[in-house]
This record gives sequence, structure tokens and C-alpha cells, in this order.
Amino acid sequence: MVDTPPFLPRPVRRMGLGVAGDADIERMIAVEMPVSIEVQGLAYAVMMATPADLEDFGVGFALAEGFVDTAAQIHRIDAQPVPGGHALRLWLSPACAARALDRARTRVSESSCGLCGLENIDAVLRPLPPLTARIAVQRAALVRALAALPERQPLGRATGAAHAAAFCDPDGKILLVREDVGRHNALDKLVGGLTRGGADPAGGFILLSARCSYELVEKTVRAGCPMLVTISAPTSLAAERAASAGLTLVSLARADNALVICDAQGMIA
Amino acid sequence: MVDTPPFLPRPVRRMGLGVAGDADIERMIAVEMPVSIEVQGLAYAVMMATPADLEDFGVGFALAEGFVDTAAQIHRIDAQPVPGGHALRLWLSPACAARALDRARTRVSESSCGLCGLENIDAVLRPLPPLTARIAVQRAALVRALAALPERQPLGRATGAAHAAAFCDPDGKILLVREDVGRHNALDKLVGGLTRGGADPAGGFILLSARCSYELVEKTVRAGCPMLVTISAPTSLAAERAASAGLTLVSLARADNALVICDAQGMIA
Repeated sequence: MVDTPPFLPRPVRRMGLGVAGDADIERMIAVEMPVSIEVQGLAYAVMMATPADLEDFGVGFALAEGFVDTAAQIHRIDAQPVPGGHALRLWLSPACAARALDRARTRVSESSCGLCGLENIDAVLRPLPPLTARIAVQRAALVRALAALPERQPLGRATGAAHAAAFCDPDGKILLVREDVGRHNALDKLVGGLTRGGADPAGGFILLSARCSYELVEKTVRAGCPMLVTISAPTSLAAERAASAGLTLVSLARADNALVICDAQGMIA
Repeated sequence: MVDTPPFLPRPVRRMGLGVAGDADIERMIAVEMPVSIEVQGLAYAVMMATPADLEDFGVGFALAEGFVDTAAQIHRIDAQPVPGGHALRLWLSPACAARALDRARTRVSESSCGLCGLENIDAVLRPLPPLTARIAVQRAALVRALAALPERQPLGRATGAAHAAAFCDPDGKILLVREDVGRHNALDKLVGGLTRGGADPAGGFILLSARCSYELVEKTVRAGCPMLVTISAPTSLAAERAASAGLTLVSLARADNALVICDAQGMIA
């Protein structure tokens, strides 16, 4: 259990740059803290994250890293404050713990001197699992989800410095939202929350308040979700990875229009 | 030499969500590619970046990682296309090469199983060098820099998916701008470009189009620059790290007002 708030007031000076004068005010600031992720008692990685929904984060992170396939393979998960941050401790089935150790070793060789650069590039762009799910989404569903998202972003509204990841059914009803200062964390938390709650990411689409970098495409595909909608623009690698994985990717989703980057399966009507 | 363009046209379908109809259009997409950074011929890290100003990126990255102190310690730097991305090759003085290898080893132990989580958290939040520079900035200088930035963001304007980092003199004149799909990369490129050009980051302030996470504070401090202005909001850790390093941090800088998060040295008049 973690009861660190996700945002905190901080005294700042609002400095007028035109006609307005100065004022000493309190501004809500999104909390970002180190989270040490430990597997079977051994440190795996330190991530910077907002200390909310950390158990969801742990499950989504484990799925995205690929050392578990289902939430059931995580026997216990525990988030606790420690000096300087939080510890997020996972106990896995023996087979998954071995995979986590293997993955840590691979990461070490990916990040260490000694490999050739081309091997490194190949290691970063690992093959994605094939997407088998298919949903049918009317454009009215996008309009509905986009309109409902701001109401579901308390951290973002308070601080202006947080991203939201929402899971929506094919009709555009938002079923779950998670927020974080990091957009990757927000998506990990969402996938973890869905999986822990027994929901299947294959049955809907994910809506992100963020720009679409390739990691967000990869996390969506690894979660088995067939469609990703982002408020802001994609990068070239995000578009390429989405196209090659068969993910339906919609970007720059605004009230009046959105860009269909790829939709090879024809899921959007 | 790299001549991959920083953005490319991509055919997409603009889907009307209200009264507008659909249209097949070309949209400019920011290029994001793997860049394998190699030191003395050994792979150090793979970063995702926009393939522009890669030599600047290499110098800024080396300074931010802390394995060189000056651009002169980099004897040669070379960026070349390779299959799947780019290779950015640095040849350092022998002492700095040894530091790079040491840093790679530290990173390996930071990221590998075996350490305790608290040691990991301490390793991530390494102490910052003291800031000794001081500048005096009138608020009119902020207004001038903010107004001039959009004109200097060709990648951002074309794609809507890039961040800019600008170095400004104390009067708010923009001296150098670098862009990238990653805000950390944009800042590394700026610091590298300044250093390669013989400019001293201590003599002005840095303006970023991004949210302010703690890494941006740390890179600014490590570059010796005494003041950071960001368009969007800071996180709690960014505010704390800025305050403890004595960095003047201004956030949510808009046309009519800006928030002074900390200014212990009283640099803003």
C-alpha cells in the first residue's frame, strides 16, 4: 500500500509577463519518484513514476518486459515506501522468475560495451507477437471517448504535467483510466489494471493523451490490443511498427477529425 | 555525414469526426530511428532519435553521461547510416574512454539483478555538480525568447511531434536551437552544439518546448547553465532537483505569465 499523493501543492511565484502583476500562489505539481522494481527480492530496474496504482504498474511493466504472460504468473505484488522512493516487489512463478533474470541479463548485454552496434539495434527492435484480435469501431465511438477523457484525468487537470491512458470498449465507453507523469508508465498501469481486473485488452481500444512513440505501439501490441488512438502525432518508427504488427493506429485525434495512420484490418467504419 | 531527412511525408486518411468528410492526404511525420552510440568502436547504448545534428547529439550525450568534460576530449566523432538506423562513433582521449567503460559498467550494475533497491535509487539520483554561474534576466527577455521560438522550430511545425531546445542570451535573443522527437535528445543536441561551437552554456538560459522532468534539470545543471525555462509544467522531482542544485527554474512559460519554481540566486528581475 502506498499513500503518497500523486500531486502536491508547491509555493511558486506567478510572474506577469504582460499587464498582469506578480503573485505568490500554490500550484499543484505532479509527483515523480524513483520506483525500484524488484523480482524475487532482486533489483530489476529503477523507473521514475507517479506513486499511484503502483501494483497495476508492476503488472503492466512485467507484461511489457515480457517476463510474464498473464497476471496469474505474478504470485504476489507489493508496493512500499522506502527512503527516496518506493519499492515495488514482485514474486513470480519459478519459470517467470528465470525469464526475468534472463531478460535482465539480455538488457545488461544490450546496454554494455562489447556488442557491435548493429546487434544492439536489432536487440532494441525485437520482433512483435502477431495481433490476432479484431474489433469494429464506428467513428462516433472515437468522438465519445475523446469527449469523455478530460473528465477522467484528475492528475492531468490539477497539474498540467501528466498523461492518461484509457481503455475503451468498441462503442467508445471508457472502462478504465490510469495517469502518470510518464506516458509509458500510464500505459503500463492501464494494461496492468485491465489484466488484474480480468479484462481482456483484445476487446477494445486504447486512447492515449500523448504523442505516439514506437514504445507505445509496442506496449499496445504486446498487450494484445488491436487498436491505439493517440491525441498527438506519431513518429516514423511508431507508424512503421504499427503497420508491420497489423495494429490499427489513429493519431492527432481531435474533436473534428483524426488521422488514420494505418488500418490494414479495416476496423474503423 | 547523415542525410536522412528529419521528417518524411506519409500517406494517411484524414477522417472527419463531425461535419467534415474524409480525405486521403500526405502528412509530415517526424523521423525516429535507432542511433547506436559507440565509444572507441564498442557499442555503448542505442538511443531513439531524429537523425539531424547527430554529431551535436553525440557531444551532448557524452557530456550528460559524464564521461567527457569538454568537447575537446572527443578526438573524432562520426555519424553514418547503418542498416536499421545510424551509428554515432566517438573516439575519446584514453582517460575519457576509460571513464566511458567505467560508466557502462556502472550502468550495467544499476540495471541488473543483484543490487538492493535502495542502492539502485541512490545510483539513479547521482549528486549534481555545483552551479557557479549567475546571470541577470529581465522578464522582457523571457517574452522575447518565447515569441521567437516557434519560428525556429521547422521540425515541430511540420510534424507536431518534436521538441525544441533553445539557448538564449540574457537579453532573450535565441542563439541556437536544436529539435528532436525526444526532448532529452533535443537538449543533448543543444548542449553539444553549443560546446562544439565554443559557446559557454553558463552565459545564458535554456528554453525548452517540453514538460520538465528531472532529467532535463540534471542535463542543464551538468552543462553548467544556471537557468532553465520550460513551456510546460515541472514534476515534483524536477522542482526538488532544481532547488537543491541552485538552478533557476521557470515553468509553464506563456505569453502573459510564467511560474518561477525556484530562483534562489535572484536571477530574474
